[in-house]
Amino acid sequence: MENDKYTIGIVGATGFTGSELARLLCQHENVTIKHITSETHKGKLFSDLHPQFLGILDQKLESADVIGDSELDVIFLALPHGVSMDFVKKWKHKKSKIIDLSGDFRLSSPEVYKDWYQKDHVFVEGFENAVYGQPELFAEQIKKSSLVANPGCYPTASILSLAPLFAAGLIEEGSVIIDAKSGLTGAGVKANDTTHFSNVNENFKAYGVGVHRHTVEIEEQFSILGKSNVQVQFTPHLLPIDRGILATSYAKTTRKLDQESLNSIYNDFYEGKPFVRIRKIAPAIKDVRGSHYCDIFPFWDERTGRVIAISTIDNLLKGAASQAVHNMNLILGLEEKTGLEQIPLRP
Amino acid sequence: MENDKYTIGIVGATGFTGSELARLLCQHENVTIKHITSETHKGKLFSDLHPQFLGILDQKLESADVIGDSELDVIFLALPHGVSMDFVKKWKHKKSKIIDLSGDFRLSSPEVYKDWYQKDHVFVEGFENAVYGQPELFAEQIKKSSLVANPGCYPTASILSLAPLFAAGLIEEGSVIIDAKSGLTGAGVKANDTTHFSNVNENFKAYGVGVHRHTVEIEEQFSILGKSNVQVQFTPHLLPIDRGILATSYAKTTRKLDQESLNSIYNDFYEGKPFVRIRKIAPAIKDVRGSHYCDIFPFWDERTGRVIAISTIDNLLKGAASQAVHNMNLILGLEEKTGLEQIPLRP
Amino acid sequence: MENDKYTIGIVGATGFTGSELARLLCQHENVTIKHITSETHKGKLFSDLHPQFLGILDQKLESADVIGDSELDVIFLALPHGVSMDFVKKWKHKKSKIIDLSGDFRLSSPEVYKDWYQKDHVFVEGFENAVYGQPELFAEQIKKSSLVANPGCYPTASILSLAPLFAAGLIEEGSVIIDAKSGLTGAGVKANDTTHFSNVNENFKAYGVGVHRHTVEIEEQFSILGKSNVQVQFTPHLLPIDRGILATSYAKTTRKLDQESLNSIYNDFYEGKPFVRIRKIAPAIKDVRGSHYCDIFPFWDERTGRVIAISTIDNLLKGAASQAVHNMNLILGLEEKTGLEQIPLRP
Amino acid sequence: MENDKYTIGIVGATGFTGSELARLLCQHENVTIKHITSETHKGKLFSDLHPQFLGILDQKLESADVIGDSELDVIFLALPHGVSMDFVKKWKHKKSKIIDLSGDFRLSSPEVYKDWYQKDHVFVEGFENAVYGQPELFAEQIKKSSLVANPGCYPTASILSLAPLFAAGLIEEGSVIIDAKSGLTGAGVKANDTTHFSNVNENFKAYGVGVHRHTVEIEEQFSILGKSNVQVQFTPHLLPIDRGILATSYAKTTRKLDQESLNSIYNDFYEGKPFVRIRKIAPAIKDVRGSHYCDIFPFWDERTGRVIAISTIDNLLKGAASQAVHNMNLILGLEEKTGLEQIPLRP
Repeated sequence: MENDKYTIGIVGATGFTGSELARLLCQHENVTIKHITSETHKGKLFSDLHPQFLGILDQKLESADVIGDSELDVIFLALPHGVSMDFVKKWKHKKSKIIDLSGDFRLSSPEVYKDWYQKDHVFVEGFENAVYGQPELFAEQIKKSSLVANPGCYPTASILSLAPLFAAGLIEEGSVIIDAKSGLTGAGVKANDTTHFSNVNENFKAYGVGVHRHTVEIEEQFSILGKSNVQVQFTPHLLPIDRGILATSYAKTTRKLDQESLNSIYNDFYEGKPFVRIRKIAPAIKDVRGSHYCDIFPFWDERTGRVIAISTIDNLLKGAASQAVHNMNLILGLEEKTGLEQIPLRP
Repeated sequence: MENDKYTIGIVGATGFTGSELARLLCQHENVTIKHITSETHKGKLFSDLHPQFLGILDQKLESADVIGDSELDVIFLALPHGVSMDFVKKWKHKKSKIIDLSGDFRLSSPEVYKDWYQKDHVFVEGFENAVYGQPELFAEQIKKSSLVANPGCYPTASILSLAPLFAAGLIEEGSVIIDAKSGLTGAGVKANDTTHFSNVNENFKAYGVGVHRHTVEIEEQFSILGKSNVQVQFTPHLLPIDRGILATSYAKTTRKLDQESLNSIYNDFYEGKPFVRIRKIAPAIKDVRGSHYCDIFPFWDERTGRVIAISTIDNLLKGAASQAVHNMNLILGLEEKTGLEQIPLRP
Repeated sequence: MENDKYTIGIVGATGFTGSELARLLCQHENVTIKHITSETHKGKLFSDLHPQFLGILDQKLESADVIGDSELDVIFLALPHGVSMDFVKKWKHKKSKIIDLSGDFRLSSPEVYKDWYQKDHVFVEGFENAVYGQPELFAEQIKKSSLVANPGCYPTASILSLAPLFAAGLIEEGSVIIDAKSGLTGAGVKANDTTHFSNVNENFKAYGVGVHRHTVEIEEQFSILGKSNVQVQFTPHLLPIDRGILATSYAKTTRKLDQESLNSIYNDFYEGKPFVRIRKIAPAIKDVRGSHYCDIFPFWDERTGRVIAISTIDNLLKGAASQAVHNMNLILGLEEKTGLEQIPLRP
Repeated sequence: MENDKYTIGIVGATGFTGSELARLLCQHENVTIKHITSETHKGKLFSDLHPQFLGILDQKLESADVIGDSELDVIFLALPHGVSMDFVKKWKHKKSKIIDLSGDFRLSSPEVYKDWYQKDHVFVEGFENAVYGQPELFAEQIKKSSLVANPGCYPTASILSLAPLFAAGLIEEGSVIIDAKSGLTGAGVKANDTTHFSNVNENFKAYGVGVHRHTVEIEEQFSILGKSNVQVQFTPHLLPIDRGILATSYAKTTRKLDQESLNSIYNDFYEGKPFVRIRKIAPAIKDVRGSHYCDIFPFWDERTGRVIAISTIDNLLKGAASQAVHNMNLILGLEEKTGLEQIPLRP
């Protein structure tokens, strides 16, 4: 019965993660979307902004103020970095669980945040409660959390690619290079030079070389897994496609492996994790597009004595919206796959 | 219970329509896929051919021979034109309902078939029973049918774009021009010059000018609707995208209309048809991609006294696989929307 | 010798036509680029804005004011509609020939301009001198002109597709439909929703249905050619590619033709026009991309008694910058092909 | 005068490098194309195969046999690996200089060739004379050569990215990782699953992980430059674009550098090399597309103590056809830039 459903709100309807959250949640059997908010477009219908939803989700957009007066089970913040923290602070006394898709609570401290985001954090206490929402690594903590920091898209692909080796203490210090490539939606819905079609189409380039914020997010999680202070070289690139991230991760190991043992390490580590698929050949982005899967191909290069682990996800789903729904399922005690079984759309 | 489900088979697993049928049907609540066949790849797993299905549909591919001995409720033929008819003939005594996605039974007679397909038809009796499977037009006939000729992709977009005006007797004879554009998957999975990336990407061209087979399919259906002998000018073009058809249809009307009356005609005609959406602005292909929707924008050009009706569908879904599932739902007496409520994937 | 070269200026360096003009003109053997202007970026180098020119054209950008004091042979205005006319007015006493790439002087009168551009024209006298710069049609007038209105991109493809039939008086009144498709650069360099990658990529749509400004430009030129008042149905669409326009033009003829006579009409009309190529099969956009060619395929559909003429150009070149250079060659009395012999870039 | 021009032949007209060679050479002021050959298409016109050349290069295709009887100054072999060597052997007594665009003579010995190409070499003597045709590194040797092994596309981008550091003895052993990405034309003109539009478009993947043939080509050249036995980790990926390669090269240095000293090393090394541009920001593929440029961005990451050098070329030009023309210019004693000054085509 509808009455028995959990109630949720989506704050920020304009962006890609907002519309993807709406797409997943309006068909999720255990929840009802009570509110979708947009300060810019309040009063319009959700389907006015996103015509693909015409006749499917014609809900009226509201101001975020309505959330304050509302008893929701879960609030999703689909807002830019630096904006989310204002809302988390404002709603700190609410009973609602908050799942924040921005980067505001992903790092270990306000100081690290300031170093990489060039901004003072306004809600320092948030760091105590926030749990890093990578379901494959921290499911138990997430279940008990009231504030989930939903991981970044690049970090999700990067962390999952080498987590088994860090957890096994097999990574040689200073040897990790992650060469990552993302579709354009990672740059957001805002129209600017970066997102102009003629700068993306038939083109390819690196950006944020040496300074991208996701570097520290990856390093911190690897440091936790590896129980040491990990430094990685991370280089993002912009692909002329809508969706998808592929990370090519390189690492030296502390002892010689072979392909078979490498496979075992990955298969064992991801045993029981329904959305990680260990592949025997290099995966393509379209193998996961439109789905919650993360496909990983771990390769042992006997010639060079190096591991190459290639992982791929849909940046808007496993790298954002469906990961948030996965976290919601954990928090609400639902079966973790609920509402997440979309099959990759290929071609 | 699984035991209560209808049993189905998919003949032809290699092509795009085969894999899209599998994607829809393996999550359809009322059916079980008993067999998926491929003569070339029998013995392999479905997910060997289509790695996006790894862990989702790992069913073994079989020879079509197994269908002969099997009591299935519905058989889907996802085969090339000229091949389907052999199977329909071979299985004519089976109780299974057949939904044929090829062009073999879409036309009115073997003679017309030969004219446009340059091939003798091997199963002339099939024409008597075959029903043209456009659910928005012929739902009642489809429900009683045992052989459904699933419409072509271009015909679906084209016919739906002007059906209300033909049905109302409003189209001026000889005035219809349909300028249609399709994504590359319409050309099939076979590797050849046409499907080579470098001939499609950043490119655009017309093809089959004046002679495309879908012309006669469209003309026959309009002739039925309009109760007269209709001739149309139909020109297909190849878009550098994976999925989607957009048809820009032009027609003179037998009397002057205005925008309001035109909207009424379309809204009334498609009243109660859940997958046709009448739009107030020109639709984009991405508004329907990955879904069963057909969006139509009827425009009255006061200056020229002409109707321009722009329709768009996903060629692999509304133009093929999901239309076939829609037909199956009708045949099996299920709620027509079952298994077809995927929300368009955008971006 | 450099000293003997004609001097030119390019007003407006930011947009696509500005950079394409610079690309063509900096390698044109008879001219020297004296000034390139940009109000927004003056002081920067041209190659700061357009890094592909690094080491090739590092000229400093200046304010358009320098043009006023400069004795240039030719001034190219690569400015938006509604801005060009201010400069033409301001510089009306200069001896420089002006080639205006905007729409400000393409139409027959300020009244028609206001109807379609929703703006009062500030330089009415300009209409007396302005010559419509379609070199294949008006070479003699262009040679003598001091103000050339460089044709629009869609009009160039559209007009050339049917000009031979209009000139021969063969077009049936009211029968012309032009269904045109353009790459995204036609929408300009400005970042907005229309040009955002995710709205263009893997997408396709019509726009400006029934109201696009190029309609009247096409009608006026056809009216001149056909010596009657011509009305056309013109529908533009947006292709997910950078460059290129393809126009599919439909017309009824006043008498029955056949393929051979149609070919003759086109071949005769374009005899001696080096950049129009009459094709025997439907052309693709990539057959002309990066070049000054216009490829046209005239097709007689015996079944429907209609001509389909498919033409394709590079919208930034034949539809803008190289057409402007062609006009300059005519004005300066140079061989018309000078600087325009780039071979289409394919793949 | 035409009579004073050098005569050349192009063996292999079907592929992308063949048509690009023809495009460059038919406008090269010092040469005349005497023969273009194709066994499959002999008798047809070059423009029948490549319609973009209609009216530009309508030369008749001949059998390669004509080359045997012809006194040509230069022969270009635009043939697959394993086929070129047959022709080089057959024509070993001819006076013509041969520029081979295949991989048959790029490696140091027949043994290494067999290891990486899985094929016995048929013309072992060829290795003695063959010069590796990287004009920026070996111009003097190329000038005196009669058999030039034109470098691979990935090797060109890869080698140029780190050559200055290897030449300076600054690369730490075993530290080099080259993560390279190429447009689809690198996969050739042949229609197969790899080149099918639906497998490339909106997709991205690695291939040849750990085993790609270009690995050894890169290692051998770095070993020569670095005067030691160099091993590199090389991973190619397939981009959904037509043209272009971007290589992201990572290396540890034997001593700490800084950004300024790194820039100096690159600027000094490429001083006087007109087609290498040292960039201050990460280059994009479109900055060089359609041109002979190689843009390189050397970056010193102070945090990790690593160099990241990002290079980009047009794979069909600097990575194949224009590099071959560059080599021809050197061999014939022409100014090295002749016929190679096309400005990058952007957008």
